Amino acid sequence: MAGSTYGKQFSIMTWGESHGAGVGVTIDGCPAGLDLTENDVQYMLNRRKPGQSAFTTPRKEDDEVEILSGVFEGKTTGTPIAMMVRNKTQRSGDYSEISQYYRPGHADFTFDEKYGFRDYRGGGRSSGRETIGRVAAGAVALKFLRRLGIKVNAYAKEIGGIGIDYQNFDMNQRDKNAFSMPDSEAAEKVKASAIKKMADGDSIGGIIECVIENIMTGVGDPVFDKLDAGLAKAMLSIGAVKGFEIGDGFEAARVTGKANNDEFFMKDGKVAKRTNHAGGVLGGISDGSDIIFRVAVKPTPSILAKQETVNKAGKNIEVSVKGRHDPMIVPRAVVVVEAMAALTLVDLIISNMGARMEKIAEFYER
Amino acid sequence: MAGSTYGKQFSIMTWGESHGAGVGVTIDGCPAGLDLTENDVQYMLNRRKPGQSAFTTPRKEDDEVEILSGVFEGKTTGTPIAMMVRNKTQRSGDYSEISQYYRPGHADFTFDEKYGFRDYRGGGRSSGRETIGRVAAGAVALKFLRRLGIKVNAYAKEIGGIGIDYQNFDMNQRDKNAFSMPDSEAAEKVKASAIKKMADGDSIGGIIECVIENIMTGVGDPVFDKLDAGLAKAMLSIGAVKGFEIGDGFEAARVTGKANNDEFFMKDGKVAKRTNHAGGVLGGISDGSDIIFRVAVKPTPSILAKQETVNKAGKNIEVSVKGRHDPMIVPRAVVVVEAMAALTLVDLIISNMGARMEKIAEFYER
Amino acid sequence: MAGSTYGKQFSIMTWGESHGAGVGVTIDGCPAGLDLTENDVQYMLNRRKPGQSAFTTPRKEDDEVEILSGVFEGKTTGTPIAMMVRNKTQRSGDYSEISQYYRPGHADFTFDEKYGFRDYRGGGRSSGRETIGRVAAGAVALKFLRRLGIKVNAYAKEIGGIGIDYQNFDMNQRDKNAFSMPDSEAAEKVKASAIKKMADGDSIGGIIECVIENIMTGVGDPVFDKLDAGLAKAMLSIGAVKGFEIGDGFEAARVTGKANNDEFFMKDGKVAKRTNHAGGVLGGISDGSDIIFRVAVKPTPSILAKQETVNKAGKNIEVSVKGRHDPMIVPRAVVVVEAMAALTLVDLIISNMGARMEKIAEFYER
Amino acid sequence: MAGSTYGKQFSIMTWGESHGAGVGVTIDGCPAGLDLTENDVQYMLNRRKPGQSAFTTPRKEDDEVEILSGVFEGKTTGTPIAMMVRNKTQRSGDYSEISQYYRPGHADFTFDEKYGFRDYRGGGRSSGRETIGRVAAGAVALKFLRRLGIKVNAYAKEIGGIGIDYQNFDMNQRDKNAFSMPDSEAAEKVKASAIKKMADGDSIGGIIECVIENIMTGVGDPVFDKLDAGLAKAMLSIGAVKGFEIGDGFEAARVTGKANNDEFFMKDGKVAKRTNHAGGVLGGISDGSDIIFRVAVKPTPSILAKQETVNKAGKNIEVSVKGRHDPMIVPRAVVVVEAMAALTLVDLIISNMGARMEKIAEFYER
Repeated sequence: MAGSTYGKQFSIMTWGESHGAGVGVTIDGCPAGLDLTENDVQYMLNRRKPGQSAFTTPRKEDDEVEILSGVFEGKTTGTPIAMMVRNKTQRSGDYSEISQYYRPGHADFTFDEKYGFRDYRGGGRSSGRETIGRVAAGAVALKFLRRLGIKVNAYAKEIGGIGIDYQNFDMNQRDKNAFSMPDSEAAEKVKASAIKKMADGDSIGGIIECVIENIMTGVGDPVFDKLDAGLAKAMLSIGAVKGFEIGDGFEAARVTGKANNDEFFMKDGKVAKRTNHAGGVLGGISDGSDIIFRVAVKPTPSILAKQETVNKAGKNIEVSVKGRHDPMIVPRAVVVVEAMAALTLVDLIISNMGARMEKIAEFYER
Repeated sequence: MAGSTYGKQFSIMTWGESHGAGVGVTIDGCPAGLDLTENDVQYMLNRRKPGQSAFTTPRKEDDEVEILSGVFEGKTTGTPIAMMVRNKTQRSGDYSEISQYYRPGHADFTFDEKYGFRDYRGGGRSSGRETIGRVAAGAVALKFLRRLGIKVNAYAKEIGGIGIDYQNFDMNQRDKNAFSMPDSEAAEKVKASAIKKMADGDSIGGIIECVIENIMTGVGDPVFDKLDAGLAKAMLSIGAVKGFEIGDGFEAARVTGKANNDEFFMKDGKVAKRTNHAGGVLGGISDGSDIIFRVAVKPTPSILAKQETVNKAGKNIEVSVKGRHDPMIVPRAVVVVEAMAALTLVDLIISNMGARMEKIAEFYER
Repeated sequence: MAGSTYGKQFSIMTWGESHGAGVGVTIDGCPAGLDLTENDVQYMLNRRKPGQSAFTTPRKEDDEVEILSGVFEGKTTGTPIAMMVRNKTQRSGDYSEISQYYRPGHADFTFDEKYGFRDYRGGGRSSGRETIGRVAAGAVALKFLRRLGIKVNAYAKEIGGIGIDYQNFDMNQRDKNAFSMPDSEAAEKVKASAIKKMADGDSIGGIIECVIENIMTGVGDPVFDKLDAGLAKAMLSIGAVKGFEIGDGFEAARVTGKANNDEFFMKDGKVAKRTNHAGGVLGGISDGSDIIFRVAVKPTPSILAKQETVNKAGKNIEVSVKGRHDPMIVPRAVVVVEAMAALTLVDLIISNMGARMEKIAEFYER
Repeated sequence: MAGSTYGKQFSIMTWGESHGAGVGVTIDGCPAGLDLTENDVQYMLNRRKPGQSAFTTPRKEDDEVEILSGVFEGKTTGTPIAMMVRNKTQRSGDYSEISQYYRPGHADFTFDEKYGFRDYRGGGRSSGRETIGRVAAGAVALKFLRRLGIKVNAYAKEIGGIGIDYQNFDMNQRDKNAFSMPDSEAAEKVKASAIKKMADGDSIGGIIECVIENIMTGVGDPVFDKLDAGLAKAMLSIGAVKGFEIGDGFEAARVTGKANNDEFFMKDGKVAKRTNHAGGVLGGISDGSDIIFRVAVKPTPSILAKQETVNKAGKNIEVSVKGRHDPMIVPRAVVVVEAMAALTLVDLIISNMGARMEKIAEFYER
């Protein structure tokens, strides 16, 4: 069982259900001496917070984080950092209906099969609120990376089939529209499309791209703990994600070796690559280029339109999933992608410190 | 560091370099009482063995496996199963040139950056021979799955842009052509295309599809250890893999919720799904449908055509990677995909036994 | 780093400092369907609570536990169980002096060496309050064991050199005296001795014994994850513990094989042992006899008597550790020993379910 | 299950049965650039090798190690180091009798209970030969420690009740007698005693002490991964070990806080301790003093004297365990204690590199 634990060195354990007392996370293995305040974490939580527009769940959620341990006088102490967000609304009366059938595209059926029953209120553990723990821990991981000069940025590359135009790419636009798109024109088109889908009681999916800049070489371990393998797991562990690709990804399967290989050359006295089809990893180890990957996000499964399903009595029924649902998951998932990428990187960066005997000896000689 | 260990319950540690004494694997956590002979393992190793055609490395490799421990009177004993394949050819003289520069698309550069130096003979640890340990362990995992009635089958879905036609799909054809394609016509087209690419000193990639049949519900743990997240890591850990998708994968990002949701209905008294866009997992837990996923494999990076690169002295040079290389990786990777999928499944199937208190109590009451 | 995580299947992560916001624990991997209320946990926390007598810290601590997740309608759901106890007193003003020097016998110096600084308020993470997380998680593990009919009982076997008399052994007495001794006469003697030591500004140690009854055979894994090895780690991880022995322990080193071997015989159709010098394990695996082990607990290091030490400015100084301190740790550690034993057992009991292929097949065939 | 894996950063997996093809170990996570030859490993294996005297098993065992991977041009490469020792004698005919009953003091019964059957030849996996993998891996860990200036030395402190006299302590004597005792007079007394016990068909136990010198401060993680907790598990995982204590151990339970606390003082500008009752750890973290611990080893369970037991048909029988057996385990276990201590230390030394953000930043800035 288990499964709510992630990372070996910088290890996190998340907890919480949609309509329980709250959601949270504990980090075991954050190094001492990192500046950290609740604002650092709150900033990230606000980015994933719904309610900014008609296209994300409008109910008010005040996701205020409390740091419960592991920080003293503004710095991490090296001991576990526990963080919690209380759930504000715990109305359980609303869920009598949902408890009796399996929503298509949701984990209701599989939770019942695995555990014998489930906390059906608001999706329980498989609710989107589960990501709060990831994002809070990710905020700490991002501070760690920033201390080393590494930047992690994700954004919506495509929503409902409408993609950004890299000619118009402007990262500053990303947080100015409701779709986390770094292209305001594309965002406008998505808006129009989304309004139509909502009217149909339907929903849309999309693709998130993430770029990691200024990463050192050597991160990632050969064979099973390759950096890209770690990122793939991290991404597929996010609720609605159905695919992952690094560098040219699936396109690499359709070109020749000549076209796909990145040639090396000397640049300012250092080894560099002329292209980056590989997306920043060779043999699972960072090569110093930007790490670029994409994830496919399915459309929101909760839709107003009528669908067939079965109830717990074993009858075929028709349902319409009521309540206010985001017609798309992508905009809120962008910050989760950044968080999971950061957690994966930090783990492998710490792990890499033990790769060479001479560096270990130097570390301890000082 | 580390990184050559995979799995928590059914845990494996692989070892070995292309031109060292041998390659191998130890399994810690295989249950006692599973029938196992060297033939079971050899069968899988033969499937990954090159030399069957002009399109896979023609040098003779006799990859004979020896089971060194953990099996007594034809059955596993519950203690570690060590398996080894001796390397037959250990000519180190050939590699003086390759030791001095970084092959594009290979891990030469990143190994040097991480470890300070590398065993450059035949690619060392990042050679394709590294997969022998995976396949040997995977053979044992597949026997485990077969005991439970679960089937795992991978095949080439597309090579060099030429895809199979599902109208012609015939799994019996898969092992009868040099491309692991379940469509003999597509295989013929690939053959023609490959001959042309080889003449150009170039190489091609492709897409492998894997189908897991007859899996019980409940396998996979919510949040970070989702079944699909585990499969994604397993697949991206394979040398040349650049992408992973489950069910409709990236296509799911472009359809609506209505189209993507799999509706439930009652079938023979059991909950079933009308479609399988999800690829057999809901919320990261198996739903009883077939598990279907695909991986993108890049073209072989070793090509005869001239490429720019740098040498260890920091000079820009031009190289042509000599030696006999497969013009494609896909056919040999098919069996590695099956092995890694099996290892991932077995681990989660054992883990799932602890999911319910009542089942634990029943287990021990007998 | 890390280190606040324990267990592989039934895994816990504890957090919290003596004078931070609170202390707590999250359990990842508790099976679904176990009856659990806050009372179950509170009962154990009350047992470790000081204030019952003059011999344990008299300050009032209301350690009220809140279960934040993982329980629905009175049963565990299989998802993480987060539990928290708020700290009532967070006066940081008292600790200005203690922040400047290293208390002998405490971890002040080693925390500074490892992390560069420390949360010095009340001992921070190395305070006895750290054990609240262990005890809360242990309460859940004990419910798990009770469901299987397994009993875990620890008690003070010896305090300040005064041992219990097994002729007077009465487990009902254990919770009726301030020393957790199952012998009221011995408890009286300890009381007299303790009063004298307190007057001297000194402290005393002791030995805790733990007996696990009705355990099934087969628990524990050969080689590194032996049941007794797990218990040894669990016990030495408790603050003031300096030694561990199972069965006859150190005495076994001084007798002959003839005297130490436990002979087998048939009893009611089952294999039984005439003696239990081994303490219930053979080759690290439970043999069905009671598991019996002992731990050595050092005297409380915080004493009023003057001691030499150094301050952060590198000066030799003399200190007397003020505040109200327990003159002995043993009585409060008894419940921690039970908790850690339970956590260790549950982990190995779940792990053992994967030991035989036939049992796995049976499990899934039903 | 599992259980043959040890260590998180410097992780080992051992394998092999007494009468199978061989025994061995793979190390995953040894840093690159450590000088290593087969001689380094063979030296340690020879120290554990029986046959030097009448008091250890006289059968000739040529335990020649082969390093199969992970070393290139005399240095570790950072990839897994596989090592193997072939078993010379695999006579399975001798064991027909032993297969039918449970030897007292052995794991025959518990293996059958756990796994349903066992490889009964020579004790199978629970044979003393299992320690070869530990010692081979330990030899590599000891080279790692030596590179950092750390020394690990174990020796017999007491055998059959006869202890060494610290006045006569001479480490050079340790390897000159058959008992690994650093006191030649005590060794003589043990010899006389052992001859008598052998004549009686009986056996004796003893106590091993281990001293770790020149260790840096900061090694070990608070709470569950304390250095002493790790050592305790490591030691109890060794076959016949029944107890562990660090520093004053069980004696600390019988003295007062005043007597047990180690006072700090300034020595040559550094913080030092006047005494070392703690045995080199405070709060589970190394304090820079020598680490001193002891383990209790039970007498050899295989004895010629008649004992009661049961056979697989459920009959009470009398047996005399034939074959040549060491009348004591202690001398051969000394090197296993060193190996396990070294493995535990290396793991925590690597782990400690991630304890401070500033040191991580410095590490990567260079």
